[in-house]
Amino acid sequence: SSAPLIIAGPCLIENRAMAVKTAEELQRISRAEGVGFIFKGSYRKANRTSGSSFSGIGDVEALEILDEIRTTYRMPVVTDVHETRDVALASRYVDVLQIPAFLCRQTELLVAAGESGLAVNIKKGQFMAPEDMALAAAKVAGTGNQRVMLTERGSSFGYHNLVVDFRGLAKMAESGYPVIYDATHSLQLPGAGNGVSGGERQYMMPLARAAVAAGVNGLFFEVHPDPSNALSDAATQVALDEFGTIVKQLLHLYRCVQSLHSL
Amino acid sequence: SSAPLIIAGPCLIENRAMAVKTAEELQRISRAEGVGFIFKGSYRKANRTSGSSFSGIGDVEALEILDEIRTTYRMPVVTDVHETRDVALASRYVDVLQIPAFLCRQTELLVAAGESGLAVNIKKGQFMAPEDMALAAAKVAGTGNQRVMLTERGSSFGYHNLVVDFRGLAKMAESGYPVIYDATHSLQLPGAGNGVSGGERQYMMPLARAAVAAGVNGLFFEVHPDPSNALSDAATQVALDEFGTIVKQLLHLYRCVQSLHSL
Amino acid sequence: SSAPLIIAGPCLIENRAMAVKTAEELQRISRAEGVGFIFKGSYRKANRTSGSSFSGIGDVEALEILDEIRTTYRMPVVTDVHETRDVALASRYVDVLQIPAFLCRQTELLVAAGESGLAVNIKKGQFMAPEDMALAAAKVAGTGNQRVMLTERGSSFGYHNLVVDFRGLAKMAESGYPVIYDATHSLQLPGAGNGVSGGERQYMMPLARAAVAAGVNGLFFEVHPDPSNALSDAATQVALDEFGTIVKQLLHLYRCVQSLHSL
Amino acid sequence: SSAPLIIAGPCLIENRAMAVKTAEELQRISRAEGVGFIFKGSYRKANRTSGSSFSGIGDVEALEILDEIRTTYRMPVVTDVHETRDVALASRYVDVLQIPAFLCRQTELLVAAGESGLAVNIKKGQFMAPEDMALAAAKVAGTGNQRVMLTERGSSFGYHNLVVDFRGLAKMAESGYPVIYDATHSLQLPGAGNGVSGGERQYMMPLARAAVAAGVNGLFFEVHPDPSNALSDAATQVALDEFGTIVKQLLHLYRCVQSLHSL
Repeated sequence: SSAPLIIAGPCLIENRAMAVKTAEELQRISRAEGVGFIFKGSYRKANRTSGSSFSGIGDVEALEILDEIRTTYRMPVVTDVHETRDVALASRYVDVLQIPAFLCRQTELLVAAGESGLAVNIKKGQFMAPEDMALAAAKVAGTGNQRVMLTERGSSFGYHNLVVDFRGLAKMAESGYPVIYDATHSLQLPGAGNGVSGGERQYMMPLARAAVAAGVNGLFFEVHPDPSNALSDAATQVALDEFGTIVKQLLHLYRCVQSLHSL
Repeated sequence: SSAPLIIAGPCLIENRAMAVKTAEELQRISRAEGVGFIFKGSYRKANRTSGSSFSGIGDVEALEILDEIRTTYRMPVVTDVHETRDVALASRYVDVLQIPAFLCRQTELLVAAGESGLAVNIKKGQFMAPEDMALAAAKVAGTGNQRVMLTERGSSFGYHNLVVDFRGLAKMAESGYPVIYDATHSLQLPGAGNGVSGGERQYMMPLARAAVAAGVNGLFFEVHPDPSNALSDAATQVALDEFGTIVKQLLHLYRCVQSLHSL
Repeated sequence: SSAPLIIAGPCLIENRAMAVKTAEELQRISRAEGVGFIFKGSYRKANRTSGSSFSGIGDVEALEILDEIRTTYRMPVVTDVHETRDVALASRYVDVLQIPAFLCRQTELLVAAGESGLAVNIKKGQFMAPEDMALAAAKVAGTGNQRVMLTERGSSFGYHNLVVDFRGLAKMAESGYPVIYDATHSLQLPGAGNGVSGGERQYMMPLARAAVAAGVNGLFFEVHPDPSNALSDAATQVALDEFGTIVKQLLHLYRCVQSLHSL
Repeated sequence: SSAPLIIAGPCLIENRAMAVKTAEELQRISRAEGVGFIFKGSYRKANRTSGSSFSGIGDVEALEILDEIRTTYRMPVVTDVHETRDVALASRYVDVLQIPAFLCRQTELLVAAGESGLAVNIKKGQFMAPEDMALAAAKVAGTGNQRVMLTERGSSFGYHNLVVDFRGLAKMAESGYPVIYDATHSLQLPGAGNGVSGGERQYMMPLARAAVAAGVNGLFFEVHPDPSNALSDAATQVALDEFGTIVKQLLHLYRCVQSLHSL
C-alpha cells in the first residue's frame, strides 16, 4: 500500500490537555503528509514495574477523552485492556483494542477482545517466538473476528534488555496479518532503573528506519508533548515537536522501499 | 529448617478420580518421609499455547475437588488465578494463591491476591530479572500481607527454550521471601511442539538436585498418575509412582546440604 | 559517502574456476552500478563445526588465486587469518585481513594483523557486546594501524540461533570505525544441522535492507555460482546470478537513506 | 567414583612465589581430604578484554614453574594453549592442555592438542550448544587421543552476562567424556567493567554445590593467595585460605550425591 499504518499517542492519558495537544499535532501532520493515524492512549497502567508508580486519572475519565478525540479529530483510537472485564468498558470508547505483550498468551482475554468485534492489536510477548504469534491471532480469529494486527516490541535478551529480531517481522507476516513495529517499547531496558524501566531513545530512528526497510505494514510510537516529564516511559517517548520530521522521513523511506521490487 | 516446602499435584484437575489418587499417594509419601506437602491443581488453564487445547472441567467443580482434598487429606491446597475476579472465587476453596509467571507484573492481580489474606506464590516471569521479583513481592506486601513465596521456573533463552539461572535463586532469596524451584516447568520448551509446549523431563532430577544444593527453601512438582495421557504438560509432569523415590532422595540431599556449613 | 563498501565473494576458494567466475560477475556489476567491491575468499576453513568437513585446496594455491583476482580484476581482496603465523603468509597476497568472530578477543592475532599494515576487518564475536568492539579495534590501532573495520554477524541468542541487534550497529559506529553488516553469516543457525551450520537465507534481503536503513557503512555477502553445491555454508550463500539485482536495490535504498536527513 | 577431579590454581603464573604458595596449600588440602588435584596456571593471557592488561612473565619462565610444581608436589599440571605453535612448547612442561572457550571450534588447535598425546580439556564456548561439544571432542579423538575432558564455563546470556545451563552438564556427559564445572569463570560478567571482566564471586558456592549435585565429574577453580590483588580475574578467583573448607564441603556433598541412587 502507499502508506504504512501509524499508531501514535501518549503512553498514558495523563490529562485532557496533553491528549488534545497531541491529537492536534497528529492531525496537522496527517494533513501535511497525507497519512492517517490511529491515536493511542492507555487509560490505566496495570503492569508498572513498581506498584507505587502513577497508574491513571480514572478509567471513564480517560476513556471519555479518547472518545472525544476520535470524534473531534476523526482519528480511530486504540487502548489496551488487561482483563476480560476491561473489554466491555473500553470497547464502548475505542476502535481498536490492544493486548499487552505480557498477556498475549491469555486465551480468555484474546477471545473477549475478539468477541468485541473491534480490531485487535496483539503485542508479541517478550518470551514468545514470532511464529507462535499465529496461535495468538488464531484465538481472536476463532471468534469470527479477522481484524488482527501483530506488533513487535522486542524479545528478552538476558536481563534488563530487549532485542528486536528483524527476522521475526517477516515470520509474523507469514501469518497473513499486518505487522507493526513498536518503535518506542522496543528500546526499553526493562526494570533497569531501580524499579523504573529505562530505554535507549537515541536508537529510535535507526531502528524505525530498519523496520520500514525490512517491510513492516505499520509503526507504533509513543509521543508526548514533554517526554522528560512524562508520568510513564519517560526514557523512550518521542517529543511531539520532533514527530513531524520523523513521519516525513519514514514515509519517504517507505515509498522508496515499495519501489525497490521494480528495479 | 529441617525440611523443604514441597508443592505437588497435577497440572490441571482433570477429574475427581485423578486428583484423589494423587492426594492419596502424596499423603502416603508425607507419612513415610515426614514431610508436608501443599497440594497443587489448576482449576482452569487460561493461557494454553493453542486456544483449542482442553482448559478444564468447570471452575466450581474443580475448586470443590481441591476443597475436598484439603479437608480429607489435611494438606493445604494451592491454585492459580489469572484475573482479579478469579481471586474472590478461588480464595474460598484454597489456602495459597499462585500468580502465573506471565502475570507477575500485573499490579491489580497481585494486589487482589494480597488482599485475600491468603499466602501468595508468585512465579518469576520468563522475561524478568530475579532481583526485580522483590518489586512484585512488594505489591503483595503493600496490602499488609507478608505471606509471599517466589518461584523460579526458567528464563527466556532464545526461542522455544528456557534456562534456569541458579544465581537467580540466591538473588531472589535476598528479598527475604522463601524461594521455590519449579522442577517441572523449568524444563519446558515453550511452544516448541507445533502449538504444544514440549519439555525435557530427563533432566528433571539433575536440576532438582542442583536447586536443593543451591539452597532453595522449597520445590514444586507437577505429578500425574499417567503423565503420557495428561491433558496438559504431558511432556514434563512426573509419574506419581516415581514421586516417592524422588522425594526421598531430595530430602536426604537437603539434609546433607543443611549440614555443610558446620564442616 | 555516495556508496557503501561492499565485500563479496565465495565463502571458500574451492577452485580457480569458481573464484574467477565470481570475480567476473562482480566486475560486471561494479561497472553497471558504479560501485566498488572488495573480493572475499577464505583460503582455508579452520573452524568448521565438524572436523571432517572440507577445509581447502591448499593455502598457497588459494592465496595465489586471490592474488590473480586482485591483479586481473583490479579489486582489493580480503581473506581471514586464524593464527599469528597466517598473517605473514596471507599478507603477501591480500589487501585486507579479516579476524573471525570467534577470534576477536585474541590479542596476539589482532596485534599481528595490525602490524602487517594492511586494513583489518574484525568480526564481532557472537559472545561480545557491540560497545566492547572498540577494545578489539584498539588492539589493532595500538600498532599504529588505524585501518580498522568492524563487522556485525549476529549475537548468540539461545542455542543454535543468532540475532542481529540493530542497536549494535550504531553502538559500534560510536567507535569511529566503519561498520559493516554481514548479510550472510547473520542468518546462520550455528550447528543446527547435525554438525553443519544451517541458515535462513529467505530473510537475507529484509535484513540487508534493514541494515542499510539503519545506517551501516558497508555490507558483506558470500556469493557463490552454485550455492546448493557449495562446499561450505551452503545454507546461506547468495546465488551469483541474483547478486546484481540485490546490489542495485540496496544501492538505491542507500542513496534514499542518505537523503533523509535533508527532509 | 569416590571423588571428583579437581583442577585448581591461579589464573596466571604471576611469579614463582605465588605459584609455589598455591601448590603447597593444595598439597596440604590434598592430604587432609584424600583428594587429588590438577594444578592449573596460564603461562600467558592471550585474550584479555583490553590489550593493555598484564599478560605474563615470559612463556618459558612460567612453564618452568609449572614443571617444577609437578615434580616437587607430584601434581599433574594443566595450562592453556591458544595457537598450534603453543602446543609444541607447552606440551614439554605440562600434563594436560586446555583449549580456551573462545577457541573450542578451532579445528587445527584441537588436532594439534590431540596429537600431543596429552589429556585435553576443552572449555565449552559461550556461543556453543552443549551437545555440539561432542563434535569438538571428536576433533581431538580423531587423532587417536581419547583423553578428553569437557568443561562448562557459562553461555552467553544477553550482553556482559553468562548463564550456566545445568541441563548442559548432562547433555555434555552424554558424549561419554568427563564433564567439569568451572566454578570461577561461570560467574564472570564479561567486559562489564570498562574493559575488565567483572564477576559475582558471592554465588560461587551455591553454583558449585549445584554442579556437584547435578552430577559433574570434576570441578575447576581459580585460586589465588590474594585475589583482590590478582593481575587477572580479580573479581572471581577464590582466596587460597578459604579453599580448604570449600573442598571439604564439596567432597562431602559429592559423596552424598553418589549415595542417593541407592535410596
